[in-house]
Amino acid sequence: MIRTGFPTVGPTLTSVGEHAVIDAIVRASPSPINGDDAAVLTPSTPNSRVVAATDMLVEGRHFRADLTTPEFVGRKAVVQNFADIEAMGARPIAALLAIAAPPEMPLAVIEGLARGVGQATADYSTELVGGDVTQSDQLVVSVAAIGSLGGNRDPLSLDHARPGQRVVAHGDIGYSAAGFALLNAGVRIPEALEPLVHAHQVPRLTPGRGVVARAAGATAMTDNSDGLIRDLSQIATHSKVGIDLSSLAIAPDDLLRKAGELLGQDPWEWVLTGGEDHTLLGTCDGSAPVGFRSIGRVTRTGQVLIDATAPHYTNGWESFG
Amino acid sequence: MIRTGFPTVGPTLTSVGEHAVIDAIVRASPSPINGDDAAVLTPSTPNSRVVAATDMLVEGRHFRADLTTPEFVGRKAVVQNFADIEAMGARPIAALLAIAAPPEMPLAVIEGLARGVGQATADYSTELVGGDVTQSDQLVVSVAAIGSLGGNRDPLSLDHARPGQRVVAHGDIGYSAAGFALLNAGVRIPEALEPLVHAHQVPRLTPGRGVVARAAGATAMTDNSDGLIRDLSQIATHSKVGIDLSSLAIAPDDLLRKAGELLGQDPWEWVLTGGEDHTLLGTCDGSAPVGFRSIGRVTRTGQVLIDATAPHYTNGWESFG
Repeated sequence: MIRTGFPTVGPTLTSVGEHAVIDAIVRASPSPINGDDAAVLTPSTPNSRVVAATDMLVEGRHFRADLTTPEFVGRKAVVQNFADIEAMGARPIAALLAIAAPPEMPLAVIEGLARGVGQATADYSTELVGGDVTQSDQLVVSVAAIGSLGGNRDPLSLDHARPGQRVVAHGDIGYSAAGFALLNAGVRIPEALEPLVHAHQVPRLTPGRGVVARAAGATAMTDNSDGLIRDLSQIATHSKVGIDLSSLAIAPDDLLRKAGELLGQDPWEWVLTGGEDHTLLGTCDGSAPVGFRSIGRVTRTGQVLIDATAPHYTNGWESFG
Repeated sequence: MIRTGFPTVGPTLTSVGEHAVIDAIVRASPSPINGDDAAVLTPSTPNSRVVAATDMLVEGRHFRADLTTPEFVGRKAVVQNFADIEAMGARPIAALLAIAAPPEMPLAVIEGLARGVGQATADYSTELVGGDVTQSDQLVVSVAAIGSLGGNRDPLSLDHARPGQRVVAHGDIGYSAAGFALLNAGVRIPEALEPLVHAHQVPRLTPGRGVVARAAGATAMTDNSDGLIRDLSQIATHSKVGIDLSSLAIAPDDLLRKAGELLGQDPWEWVLTGGEDHTLLGTCDGSAPVGFRSIGRVTRTGQVLIDATAPHYTNGWESFG
């Protein structure tokens, strides 16, 4: 079943006041260390390193109130931030949540958001440890994620890919873009294609895959946030290498092909430029770490190619387009 | 000299594109660990605890483009977050910056913001380690601060005030509210009153005062963000104590009185309800830590009083007012 739409009725943020808004968030996503000026986190591992990232979701830009739900937005905001932590080979441990919202917005929207944040932080065995709520014209959800990197191995940085390595992926590629295209087209969506829509509303990622990859000897990693070619180009540029993808390994699957037929669009575009899947993309020397599959090889060409040929689609997300 | 106003001309965010926007930020606030999916921070002290907080500034709500500059907004965004770290007795070590901005905004605004962030992070010997830029209808600046709490002493939490303790403050109280009142009134501001305006545009706080207070035996602390009475009430409520302030110790000084006369306003209102000074407010057993002055005593009454009498003004910042 596809769920969409934000609550439009009920008590507003102005009518209940800031205190009740904060209470609603803390109730939906409780933590014993939330509520002071700042949160103090106890280290999980002696001498572990702290890893930090932040990402914003803006209504009308990253999500539409008619195509998703507040719960999904809350979950997505957390998962996309935790994907950045995982992409370093680290383990997410906490999230901070800052929300700017119009005063006439129903409290139920914030309650839904907070439930989503609570679910996602719980999925990762983490906590919402602090935040801020404030007034704006447009709903803005800003999450900061904090992670922990144990041991002495290097983090999985963009500049650690080496020629000859295997390129590996964990998660679907192109599903989020296909799901958005289906929702945006306003067509009746066949039940079989619902996984694409779900993948757009909340990216799927198994918690801990980044840590597994680092333990298994992966060296570079990023997540598919802006588009497969664009994100792999980041690794290529920073590592001064090329990447040759196997067209067989990344070819649109049945679901993507069916969605493409339904909408009259080329599913390869979703695969190569879609982004927002937050699929983990890495490089490693030996066989693919558990949960990852091979999608190509690191080369010396300086370019991201498919079967040694330039890809048909190379665009990606542009923030001020 | 009072500086106000945002740049209104020059290349826009859309015309230069996301890449140039990020470049401008990183140039103004460089860090060797920025630029990957997430930043990996090396621990300063073995087994130190991580401290984290987040705060947003929204244009038209927390600042007006005609009454401040982008540099000041950038500095304020960092300082108010670091004040929350200091209020735990911890040392800020890094900041994350997420900006949502209208596409037609001049790049010069973001460059100014980034310069301000760069100055403030440098003042605290910290770095801007990561961020996000995205499009919105309204400028929103979201900062997350990460700090480090060394040693085994408790953090300076809201619930650690004890009856009989001294109440201490570091920094001015009421200056920010008076400065905003002066700017907002549109009057010609005498040079002598400019420190009030400066305090509003960028809160002043000596880096490290929170760490000093914790080392000197302070037990509870917060910062004056929402108003003196309201913020001290947080300590009173969480610690199940009362606070009796000395009217002599917090009385409006010459500058505040002169601003009050100029505008026909009672400067006591700025002192008691103003907020945004980010003054550190704490409690301790012995004498006041270096840099702090005594402003009252912790009592058993359960209320925040002045000379044992209810204050005339008790309001404070309300996010959805």
